[in-house]
Amino acid sequence: MKVTLAQINTHAGDVEKNLQKIKNTISQYASQSDLIVFPEMALCGAPLYDFQNQLALVLQQEKGIKEIHHMVNALGKNLMVVLGAIQREEKGNQSSYYNSAVVIGKDISSYHKQQLPNQGIKNEARYLSSGAEMKVFPLPQGKKLGVLIGEDANSPELLAQLKDQNPDLVVRINSAPFEGESSGQRIQKLQAIQKALRSNFIELNQVGGEGGIIFDGGSTAFTTEGKLLHQPTRFKEAIDLIDTETFGSDFSSLETPAYYDELLSAMQLGLKDYLEKNKISDLVIGVSGGIDSAIDLYLAAQAVSPEHIHAIYMPTAFNSPLSLELSQKLAENLGISLQIGTIQPLLEEYETFADKVLNRPLEGVSHENIQARIRGNILMNIANDYRALVLNNSNKTELALGYGTLYGDLIGGLCPLGDLKKTTVYALAKHINKEKEWIPQGIIERKASAELREGQVDPFDYERDADVVDALLWGGDPQTLAETYPGDSDHLSELAQRVKRARFKAKQLPPVLKLTPQTIGQGTQLPY
Amino acid sequence: MKVTLAQINTHAGDVEKNLQKIKNTISQYASQSDLIVFPEMALCGAPLYDFQNQLALVLQQEKGIKEIHHMVNALGKNLMVVLGAIQREEKGNQSSYYNSAVVIGKDISSYHKQQLPNQGIKNEARYLSSGAEMKVFPLPQGKKLGVLIGEDANSPELLAQLKDQNPDLVVRINSAPFEGESSGQRIQKLQAIQKALRSNFIELNQVGGEGGIIFDGGSTAFTTEGKLLHQPTRFKEAIDLIDTETFGSDFSSLETPAYYDELLSAMQLGLKDYLEKNKISDLVIGVSGGIDSAIDLYLAAQAVSPEHIHAIYMPTAFNSPLSLELSQKLAENLGISLQIGTIQPLLEEYETFADKVLNRPLEGVSHENIQARIRGNILMNIANDYRALVLNNSNKTELALGYGTLYGDLIGGLCPLGDLKKTTVYALAKHINKEKEWIPQGIIERKASAELREGQVDPFDYERDADVVDALLWGGDPQTLAETYPGDSDHLSELAQRVKRARFKAKQLPPVLKLTPQTIGQGTQLPY
Repeated sequence: MKVTLAQINTHAGDVEKNLQKIKNTISQYASQSDLIVFPEMALCGAPLYDFQNQLALVLQQEKGIKEIHHMVNALGKNLMVVLGAIQREEKGNQSSYYNSAVVIGKDISSYHKQQLPNQGIKNEARYLSSGAEMKVFPLPQGKKLGVLIGEDANSPELLAQLKDQNPDLVVRINSAPFEGESSGQRIQKLQAIQKALRSNFIELNQVGGEGGIIFDGGSTAFTTEGKLLHQPTRFKEAIDLIDTETFGSDFSSLETPAYYDELLSAMQLGLKDYLEKNKISDLVIGVSGGIDSAIDLYLAAQAVSPEHIHAIYMPTAFNSPLSLELSQKLAENLGISLQIGTIQPLLEEYETFADKVLNRPLEGVSHENIQARIRGNILMNIANDYRALVLNNSNKTELALGYGTLYGDLIGGLCPLGDLKKTTVYALAKHINKEKEWIPQGIIERKASAELREGQVDPFDYERDADVVDALLWGGDPQTLAETYPGDSDHLSELAQRVKRARFKAKQLPPVLKLTPQTIGQGTQLPY
Repeated sequence: MKVTLAQINTHAGDVEKNLQKIKNTISQYASQSDLIVFPEMALCGAPLYDFQNQLALVLQQEKGIKEIHHMVNALGKNLMVVLGAIQREEKGNQSSYYNSAVVIGKDISSYHKQQLPNQGIKNEARYLSSGAEMKVFPLPQGKKLGVLIGEDANSPELLAQLKDQNPDLVVRINSAPFEGESSGQRIQKLQAIQKALRSNFIELNQVGGEGGIIFDGGSTAFTTEGKLLHQPTRFKEAIDLIDTETFGSDFSSLETPAYYDELLSAMQLGLKDYLEKNKISDLVIGVSGGIDSAIDLYLAAQAVSPEHIHAIYMPTAFNSPLSLELSQKLAENLGISLQIGTIQPLLEEYETFADKVLNRPLEGVSHENIQARIRGNILMNIANDYRALVLNNSNKTELALGYGTLYGDLIGGLCPLGDLKKTTVYALAKHINKEKEWIPQGIIERKASAELREGQVDPFDYERDADVVDALLWGGDPQTLAETYPGDSDHLSELAQRVKRARFKAKQLPPVLKLTPQTIGQGTQLPY
């Protein structure tokens, strides 16, 4: 039996576009396939958040399923298609909506997902109903196909129920967001599922970026003995053909890329898809000579061509000559032209306004913040001019600590580093430089500073504090943390206060690229 | 039996503070009471979002419950206290967390909430476990107390189970956010619950504002016959004493305030508590001579004294003399001093920067947006100077349409009108002026304009479009809407596109004061 794993990149909410892609894939691979499998929610795309049970979207999907059915039957062969969609069932005058695996062959049949997730970015339990039973679908030659959807496979009971029905092949369609797992970890989890089933097992996961959420793909297949027989492709579309007759015969050894390589691939996918799906061609970046903007510029250079990158360095009297020098070197390394313009006259005009109108000199925090906000304004000017996206250069540690200026350096359309601790940011920079010094060593080695006043440096020891700040962000208790983290408990309480006070800033952030299980603003909701 | 309804205003996450208030209330009312009832989650406060099952918070509550128990017993009378808290139960090495009604008398016993909500701002089903059974607690003289928590009362099955146990008195502790219901509507719902129970019935609802969410109180009591016997107090703390012996004997007639009066009370509570709970004393408002900033200035004047209001009018050459005149009249009416300062020199300095550094004249959208952003900067300067909160003057229709400038007029710490349609904003202004013309009539009558270029007026017919824009915001289908709303379907499709494109702005808003069932950013998550 020949199975095509169609790991396609869908568009959340664009049924028309997804349908076209699905039909194109079927057209292209039908002749070589007995079964073509698409991801969970392939027809509607994911995540849909509050729109999962939106009637118009579901009606579009019903129409799409009919079209695919018609197409499959017109092919005149025993082709089967499994694809994810939201389906509606009417009982009395009540509609129920399901996360379904639609099995399209001669007929159309469905399996409805039973384990509806209600955590992180997934809120299916809010909008959808649970399916009532596990079942199998007939395959040619009396064989049986079992279907699982996403979190169904986390339930030992459901796996046992499916095993009891003795399927020859089980397909799990999935829509699992990337949360930092390596290929190795992902495969271990899949192996555990296969072990519980003891059948041939295919994993078909969504791939692509959607509003800062990255679906990593990594679709693959296992023999009945649990032998991995397909090199998973992560972070990009992949259409792979598998022959169940030769299952296991031609697969040599698994490549597992280094963690930081996978992280970079994830970030690149997230950024590129964010641009593409929002039809944005240009990026704007404020370069400071610091580590965060340096990595963002590197990511930008990977995502779009140099003429679509608007990089600008905007000093005041507080910025050191070294910052300019390092910014220029960085831009040169990446082949990007760097605009340079002092904002000192603008700063002075605000000082004049404060003196004349507000009757109060611009000083202290006001004087620091206005510099960041002037820069924010200029970046947005450029964005307005070119319909471009401003990258927000913040990292997770700074966001947690509130070490950033609202409407200043906290602006932007996407925050690529916002889910990485400052220490991870440094490690990532070193990894980027492994083959070639893209990021000037001086940027990695210098002391972090916002350069908003004379002699300012970041008032944190990131090596010591980054981990504990992350724990505090999610409600960690300073007293409990004091047992595992270095530093006295006064210091921890002070950090905890700071993190708590900073939450209001996190509520006004652009979407953060999700790279860990707990991401600011992506499936999380911090209180008070 | 004497019951004290302690409709107290708690602080989400501040167990220490809530405990103190609960203990003070018990001290003060113990001598007159047989039973004192506090709201759902009284000890921890609500909403807690991701922190509902935070261990440190639960341990604080366990300690607090012990203290209250000790206190109640030390009083040497048969006092009972019912209060809401999150409780933990250990089974094996797994902890379960419950939304509980803790019944404190000689012993401590609990009822665990069974219907865990998973909608709007409430995500209890994510973090808490459901209780397993309905039960009653012994009252003096062999009588029985039934307890319900919040959404439990939405379940006919649970109401029937409780009725089967023949309670003499049922108390529902609640934590229901205000969503625009009138007192009359709220009481009708309570009557339906009482009708299903046919016992004495007490509703005890949380009151207070928390991060833009308003709990409206409205606690009250019914006789076994369903007769309302207590005037509910909404939108403020209230400690009320009821005698079950005289139930129904001294209550004359219910006052139901006008809708806009209740709406204003809700908004005032939401704003005042936002300030108080975040320890902010001062407000900053950019006054434009338009309707939205006029209402916000009125609300500010109700919330804090004039010397704590920093109102500023910041014209460019595009602002009409009428705008200044109306702004001055408004400030005068409200007894607030208005600062006035042209931002023209700042605008010109940005024009110079664009010419010199960006090599592109500042024009079109860039030229419009920068004006809003300069104003945003100045408002934030003032906020930084006085540790004050900037009010965001947007209304729901403009937010839905994206008719606002990110980091410009969309800045702020709280958005009081963000859940009201433009048409409601006008109606509210007229209501405010009923007794006295606080808001100059000219502001209500003039055509809405952002005044960012010559002769600009808002490109919408709000009377015609406000309702349909609201429907589109939540995923309404233009085709379906065309059947019920005036206007051709091309116009609706255009509005739908606009609303969809505007969603990225809504993701970076300050907290919106929740006044309807569906509020931007408060318990809602719009996709793609």
